[in-house]
Amino acid sequence: MITREILASVFLAKNVAVVGASENPDKTGYQVLSNIIDGGFRGEIYPINPRSNEILGIRCYSELLAVPEDIDLVVVIVPAKFVPDVMRQAAEKHAKGAVIISGGFREIGNIELEQEVMQIANDNSIAVIGPNCQGINYPPNHLCATWPLLTSQGAMAIIAQSGTIGATMAGWAEEDGIGFTSVVALGNKSGVGEIELLDYFAEDPATRVIALNIEGVNDGAQFITMAKRALAKKSVVVLKPGRTAKGAEAAASHTKSIAGSDQVFDAVCRQTGLIRAEGIAEFYDYAKILGLLQKPAGNRLMVITSSGGSGILAADTADDLGIRIDKPDGATIDALRAVLPNQCVLSNPLDLTGDATARRYLDALEVVIQSDDADAYLVIFGDPIENAAQMLQSIRNKTEKPIIAAFLGGGEVEKREVPLMNAAGIPVFPTPERAIRALGALLRKK
Amino acid sequence: MITREILASVFLAKNVAVVGASENPDKTGYQVLSNIIDGGFRGEIYPINPRSNEILGIRCYSELLAVPEDIDLVVVIVPAKFVPDVMRQAAEKHAKGAVIISGGFREIGNIELEQEVMQIANDNSIAVIGPNCQGINYPPNHLCATWPLLTSQGAMAIIAQSGTIGATMAGWAEEDGIGFTSVVALGNKSGVGEIELLDYFAEDPATRVIALNIEGVNDGAQFITMAKRALAKKSVVVLKPGRTAKGAEAAASHTKSIAGSDQVFDAVCRQTGLIRAEGIAEFYDYAKILGLLQKPAGNRLMVITSSGGSGILAADTADDLGIRIDKPDGATIDALRAVLPNQCVLSNPLDLTGDATARRYLDALEVVIQSDDADAYLVIFGDPIENAAQMLQSIRNKTEKPIIAAFLGGGEVEKREVPLMNAAGIPVFPTPERAIRALGALLRKK
Repeated sequence: MITREILASVFLAKNVAVVGASENPDKTGYQVLSNIIDGGFRGEIYPINPRSNEILGIRCYSELLAVPEDIDLVVVIVPAKFVPDVMRQAAEKHAKGAVIISGGFREIGNIELEQEVMQIANDNSIAVIGPNCQGINYPPNHLCATWPLLTSQGAMAIIAQSGTIGATMAGWAEEDGIGFTSVVALGNKSGVGEIELLDYFAEDPATRVIALNIEGVNDGAQFITMAKRALAKKSVVVLKPGRTAKGAEAAASHTKSIAGSDQVFDAVCRQTGLIRAEGIAEFYDYAKILGLLQKPAGNRLMVITSSGGSGILAADTADDLGIRIDKPDGATIDALRAVLPNQCVLSNPLDLTGDATARRYLDALEVVIQSDDADAYLVIFGDPIENAAQMLQSIRNKTEKPIIAAFLGGGEVEKREVPLMNAAGIPVFPTPERAIRALGALLRKK
Repeated sequence: MITREILASVFLAKNVAVVGASENPDKTGYQVLSNIIDGGFRGEIYPINPRSNEILGIRCYSELLAVPEDIDLVVVIVPAKFVPDVMRQAAEKHAKGAVIISGGFREIGNIELEQEVMQIANDNSIAVIGPNCQGINYPPNHLCATWPLLTSQGAMAIIAQSGTIGATMAGWAEEDGIGFTSVVALGNKSGVGEIELLDYFAEDPATRVIALNIEGVNDGAQFITMAKRALAKKSVVVLKPGRTAKGAEAAASHTKSIAGSDQVFDAVCRQTGLIRAEGIAEFYDYAKILGLLQKPAGNRLMVITSSGGSGILAADTADDLGIRIDKPDGATIDALRAVLPNQCVLSNPLDLTGDATARRYLDALEVVIQSDDADAYLVIFGDPIENAAQMLQSIRNKTEKPIIAAFLGGGEVEKREVPLMNAAGIPVFPTPERAIRALGALLRKK
């Protein structure tokens, strides 16, 4: 039984050994060690490799047993056949967890070898992440035992069967300025699975949204129970590829997951309130918006833009999803007319036109947030609008209603302003279409 | 009648005047002038403003007539009511073209003022871009008379009713390392419209693909004739927002376009071979792939990946679009077994697993391109794979079949490798889903 307490001592490990650390920059054993170091881990780091005395400037030990103290977390990157022995040594060193990056187990038919490893783990209460996984990343403990090097702390707990999907999500979150609480790569998930991690992150105060990528569930009933429990505390977004016949076939050869009926899984999502994403970009967008905003009171959206063309794309996508784009009432139009130049189109979308400045957005937004015409606002910046983030923050402080943004065509100004907005809790998307689809996910929240 | 010769002398202008140039960095008249300078325009630049002697270090003139020579191109950023006088002066200076960025014409009901401007233009054979547009960008002449500053020369001709959509496309093309031949913002398109520009870029040797964003067409029959003529020489991708009732309403207030029936336009696209995009990201992806690759001989795709999870996403999207993911034949599997480590999954997707290097991709690709199992290849890099671009280029030189790539979860390595691949003519997409949808567009080509 892997409890929250055990997982906490894995994530908050006070020291870490890297078994299979390597001096060769092409090897995973080098990259992981170097990311743990460069990620700023503050505890002792023990590279283990019988053929080196020192790697990356750190004393290297021949085996775990040679390390002069107990070890909280063991990261394993040696060939599969050596893993049972590593696990026995880890047990002697009272390890709380083992992140087994090594492949070559159940996924290629070596079921017995995997069972042997798990037997040792279970006998010694060692929480196993993997095997055949891409490691873990836990910024609150500056522990980047994976690749690539990413370090931004945020509120999104990423649980990913696919290491690449996890790393991609974390990479986007870092670039966007929102960060993540964790990336846990499940791999063969023979020890720690989605159940234990949903349980953990549901109770984690730093986590506001859980992004869960799975290819199958080990136990359907248990999954539903745990999903409901997690959903009572957090938003949960799910990406479960293998929707189609060809996809399910690929999933079966990837992790030997039994995908089950996709329709059944879809029904489970609708019933429990899990927000399902269709692809990896939506997975990220949905997790981002659900981590930052509350569900609006209704589905009436007001679009404020400097780009007429982008406003039309927003209106199209909103219409596709049944999100209402109602015209502002007469009083609002009159109030807008009083503060805006006459080339502006006083409708919904409200088009501030291409020479709009942050000041013009502020004037317009101060009017529209006073009215009861809309339940949420999409602010589209279609030009290099300086100080857009600061302006939007001041508006955000004056209304309870959710504000989302899209920024495009803004060159260097856009690159500066976007992370500032995201970091201030206003989710920004690279296109109006993605912004509206994300809002659609927020509206689907139970 | 705006001929190709007139348009050529606009794009290849030997000098340019900016009427309404400004010393105030918040003003469009400053940004455009500064982008023309910073974009590296090599001819004379004449800022025009009666209240300045010098702007950005360049001598400023009180009016066009004060400039000591004839002027090829006049960029106009003064209030609408002054534009007729500017046009009369431009005529005296034998201007070939006027890019009228100023708004305040037909789009807000000032039809007569616009007619007055166009009368002067037509009487003097001045090609008008706009009015109410975001200018033009023509890297072959280092002429960035728009915003933001973008300068990368490539093979994509961007014609955009919406300045933001044009700027966004060009920005992505610059970031991706593929560049563009032009961005022409149509605005009210009272002079130069899609007909003249399709005609021009169809004959432009530097252009391989035309990306056309319109909200309506002025003359349906003429549009079909010209589209067919352009399609005989180039690929053409169209983004026409206003698909939905709400979108069409927004389009009507944006450019007073009569959108016409969306079904009719869709039928025109299918009939002529115009590739229609649904949103701005697809608009870019489709233009990118059509500018770089030939249509494959069939729809059998082989997926090669370091990420099993990404391979499943690719298989799902392929299945959605009817793109075949067939298993390799026995001989190919045997040949792969001989060169790949045993954790690899020898199927389609071919999973090289998370510790794959460029060398392992090379070994696998050299086998698969020998077989006749597939008509195209999608190579997914799901990890920081060093030298991925160089490896893929060497494979590309050994096969006639199209190769596309997706790169994700690759951190800094990804940022370095992606533009190299794109620049080498191998289109890279940020997700497997987008890569496959782009391939779907390539397969729809007539």
